[in-house]
Amino acid sequence: MEPEDFRKYGHELIDWIADYWEHIDDLPIVPDVAPGDIRAALPERAPEEPEPFSEIISDLDEIVVPGLTQWQSPGWFAFFPGNTSLPAVLGEAVTAALGQQGMMWSTSPVATELENVVVDWFVDLLGLPDGWKTTGRGGGVIQPSASDSTHTALVVARERAARRGPAIRMVAYTSEQAHSSVEKGANLAGFGRIALVPVDGSHAMRPEALRRMIVEDIEAGLIPAVVTSAVGTTGTAAVDPVRLIGELAREYEMWHHVDAAYAGSAMICPEFQKDQDGLELVDSYTFNPHKWLLVGVDCSMFYVADRAPLIDAMSIVPPYLRNEASESGEVIDYRDWHVALGRRFRALKVWFVLRSYGAEGIRAMIREHVRLANELAQRLEADDRFELVTPVSYALVCFRHVTGDEATDALAAVINQSGHSHLTASKLDDRSFIRVSIGQTQTEQRHVDRLWDLIDRAAAPAR
Amino acid sequence: MEPEDFRKYGHELIDWIADYWEHIDDLPIVPDVAPGDIRAALPERAPEEPEPFSEIISDLDEIVVPGLTQWQSPGWFAFFPGNTSLPAVLGEAVTAALGQQGMMWSTSPVATELENVVVDWFVDLLGLPDGWKTTGRGGGVIQPSASDSTHTALVVARERAARRGPAIRMVAYTSEQAHSSVEKGANLAGFGRIALVPVDGSHAMRPEALRRMIVEDIEAGLIPAVVTSAVGTTGTAAVDPVRLIGELAREYEMWHHVDAAYAGSAMICPEFQKDQDGLELVDSYTFNPHKWLLVGVDCSMFYVADRAPLIDAMSIVPPYLRNEASESGEVIDYRDWHVALGRRFRALKVWFVLRSYGAEGIRAMIREHVRLANELAQRLEADDRFELVTPVSYALVCFRHVTGDEATDALAAVINQSGHSHLTASKLDDRSFIRVSIGQTQTEQRHVDRLWDLIDRAAAPAR
Repeated sequence: MEPEDFRKYGHELIDWIADYWEHIDDLPIVPDVAPGDIRAALPERAPEEPEPFSEIISDLDEIVVPGLTQWQSPGWFAFFPGNTSLPAVLGEAVTAALGQQGMMWSTSPVATELENVVVDWFVDLLGLPDGWKTTGRGGGVIQPSASDSTHTALVVARERAARRGPAIRMVAYTSEQAHSSVEKGANLAGFGRIALVPVDGSHAMRPEALRRMIVEDIEAGLIPAVVTSAVGTTGTAAVDPVRLIGELAREYEMWHHVDAAYAGSAMICPEFQKDQDGLELVDSYTFNPHKWLLVGVDCSMFYVADRAPLIDAMSIVPPYLRNEASESGEVIDYRDWHVALGRRFRALKVWFVLRSYGAEGIRAMIREHVRLANELAQRLEADDRFELVTPVSYALVCFRHVTGDEATDALAAVINQSGHSHLTASKLDDRSFIRVSIGQTQTEQRHVDRLWDLIDRAAAPAR
Repeated sequence: MEPEDFRKYGHELIDWIADYWEHIDDLPIVPDVAPGDIRAALPERAPEEPEPFSEIISDLDEIVVPGLTQWQSPGWFAFFPGNTSLPAVLGEAVTAALGQQGMMWSTSPVATELENVVVDWFVDLLGLPDGWKTTGRGGGVIQPSASDSTHTALVVARERAARRGPAIRMVAYTSEQAHSSVEKGANLAGFGRIALVPVDGSHAMRPEALRRMIVEDIEAGLIPAVVTSAVGTTGTAAVDPVRLIGELAREYEMWHHVDAAYAGSAMICPEFQKDQDGLELVDSYTFNPHKWLLVGVDCSMFYVADRAPLIDAMSIVPPYLRNEASESGEVIDYRDWHVALGRRFRALKVWFVLRSYGAEGIRAMIREHVRLANELAQRLEADDRFELVTPVSYALVCFRHVTGDEATDALAAVINQSGHSHLTASKLDDRSFIRVSIGQTQTEQRHVDRLWDLIDRAAAPAR
């Protein structure tokens, strides 16, 4: 493609994207496709000859959009948000065009230093300990997902505990309500035992249960190596007692990782920062700006209080990667901060978004989502057909129908068939409940009102 | 940002990108920045209030471009290529705008099925075994990097060998010339021993040495679990004997992974496919379209001959991820194919590129790069000041100055200071050599001629 064609089709696609964003709410959130339908619309073999770019653009309308699950819809209340924004889209386009591979400072000084700067900015924005800045002993890095970040933490924890015995005897603790990535990461890292700690009535980890399990494991000849706390669990956005868990981690020489994948974004509003009290007793921390900070998938930030054990676990320097800047010790080489060697220039879109909205603009969005969640919860509580499963946490509303699973599941199904609203039906203590997670970029009062109207119309009577 | 502003600034940025691509060759490849310079140009704290988008665009010129290492320059001959193209840039912009998170088929049917289709297309294009298609027992997936793909392979290998003993007694074999990601991945996966197998005069793994090491390890009570062959090593693009290594892997029940990160792209030209003879004796394979297929970082493809052990090692299904499509067994849920749960819609840019160029267009590019490499090698060979370290492999030329390290290192330094050409100075058997890797999108005859003129002018005499 010549630059002149790129100008022509690029302008067309920018307008196509703007049109798409203006009309997302008109599209059904769940596509009307069965497994194999999209594949059947595509040729069996790759094209041998070039095709006109105009055909590619028309296939966006014919094949791609009808096969999307509309994550960016204002009626998207499923899972946690994965919101993006138009400045992030422009940032991604520039990242792609610059074609940087920032494995080391020397292979892209700006990709490295801009990433240093934005992760340090978030230390202040989220109220993280000052020593976690790249200018201190610790530092942050952008990884693709919280699963990657948590897996990294678990590998480093394993290496730190290695002098105490083999991985097969090590235990990784987390709560019964932890995200599946903790268990997956611990499996991948080769831990011998993954211990799920019971939770209390608010679905937060019980520190005294953790202590009991640690003591029993030690008596059984096992090695308590790492505990992962959640600030905002996946099921109900419950908050584990970070400080108490941190004290146990210190007492038993365990690595302490915090998974704040969702709720970390809310910490940009100082009123939520009390939920992560005790961060000075934390070794690593991850949160996903790609969930609720307008930057788009993928962007997970991973922080360590001390970068030495991370780099010790990850660093291998063959001759073709040796260079003056790295050997000076004055730069950060992000190749040593995660599994991957090659890496995209992800910090650019974060920079675009922070500058386009300002921290105050992002706080306003989060506070509005939280307000909408509380308002919806009040409506549910005031109606005798519904009960909240937990108090609203951040912008997550968890409720069920008072008559039980059947009415709850049926209600979720009706809403998800509406086309305009989408939420997650899940289970807690073997009982069905509905998660309404409010956090998409274009979600406003009227979209939550529309959801409430549907809930109100579709729900079975209380008895 | 409102859609109207997006149209305005989006059009500006498309033109900015086109201008950048038209003028990359005028920019110094190595930026004139010292560690900390870019950071010093940025504010210490994130902006609280929104800034005009026009300022962001002007900072691209003021701060970003002067801090880039110009990977996309036509004079980029360093490492391996990491080439991208204007259709890939448009694909990335659309991916960002659609904001998909394709962890499961149900969360984005088109992201899943288009990925199924493009990875299957590459099975035919690269001459891979038919059973590696997602319609067969195996299948492919897009991961961020070959390091991620290889790490995944090593974890699966470890799990498959688990019934024979703990990871601490397992051995991962690869050649002394393997990429650092193999050693790193084996460390992260917790292998007790990483055995580097000696190479022959062409820097390819010696199968009889591998056999000897396996036998000795078994006698020492260790468990040979996995061997990684390279098709195109990082140092010199040497090709390990895949078939012979595969036979040993079968004999000793080891997983056999192939790292074709660079050379895999060349397999789109059938004349190179003989280098990977023996793929029916391979369990997993990775190559990086983001190196030499115009798609841009990040895009690594990872194939398995049988997807069952991969999914067994990676799958954890909590209640909030249960859904009808997954339980039907009719779809692929890519969450179970790698460490990450969340994932970008990377297949879109691959589709854009394959359709924009056609397979024939891509083959023409690769063959031209290979031709330019051979021509440069002939010039070097005809000059008594230089010697080739190895015959040209694909489009990689490895040479040194006949008088030794001092003149070789000095020559590399002069070229890298030229601003217009950039290559990698490395070591092989403790002797300096220069790697010239030809593979950037805009690299033409005149850029290689310019490099040759500089080599010719700058090199010390033969004696």
